[in-house]
Amino acid sequence: MTQQQMTALDSVLEYHRCWTSGDIDGAMQYIADDMVCKAPGADVVGKEQYRAFLGGFASMLTGLEDLAAFGDDDHAVLFYYPHTPQTSTSPTAEHFTIRDGKIVETVLCFDRMSFIPPQA
Amino acid sequence: MTQQQMTALDSVLEYHRCWTSGDIDGAMQYIADDMVCKAPGADVVGKEQYRAFLGGFASMLTGLEDLAAFGDDDHAVLFYYPHTPQTSTSPTAEHFTIRDGKIVETVLCFDRMSFIPPQA
Repeated sequence: MTQQQMTALDSVLEYHRCWTSGDIDGAMQYIADDMVCKAPGADVVGKEQYRAFLGGFASMLTGLEDLAAFGDDDHAVLFYYPHTPQTSTSPTAEHFTIRDGKIVETVLCFDRMSFIPPQA
Repeated sequence: MTQQQMTALDSVLEYHRCWTSGDIDGAMQYIADDMVCKAPGADVVGKEQYRAFLGGFASMLTGLEDLAAFGDDDHAVLFYYPHTPQTSTSPTAEHFTIRDGKIVETVLCFDRMSFIPPQA
């Protein structure tokens, strides 16, 4: 399939499969240059800034449990449990907006307190 | 419609409409006695404990912006921005499991730090 033939959910699931298996280059093929990620506490703006953000989190990932995936023509939602050294029971939810097969916006929902390493 | 004829998403949307408009009694009609809410930091177990939890949050609600709603036979997902005195830009996502028209589990995803009142 070309990216134009994929549904929004197809694109998002492929993006998700890539980055959670450590393939950041593959994941970034699904990210629009001017994407915005509305993350807790701050927006991440633009593909390069997002690459650093995603790569940083991916480097902490020790496992993954997927919970739900839904989508329509232009949007998709994922629910999953990222496993990190701090937690494997705190969920992450993402709402994606897709244009021309690429992710132009994500609203990222997770509890920062659950992912913060214990203070020394 | 009886609750048995409603889809999982119908039930969840009606539950959501009730509590976000202050109708906690109406919302609780969609909650199973033995429900579990997996909330950030702690599980809320059982209908009465959940009533207190939901009522407490509902009392802080000053507005609402719905972002997305999806569902299948037994599950639904909502994404929305609850408006509180602290924030109107921090999203909440919920993943619901429905049995016999009632919510038996929710996985609740939000950033506690965004909703905490500033310390005096």
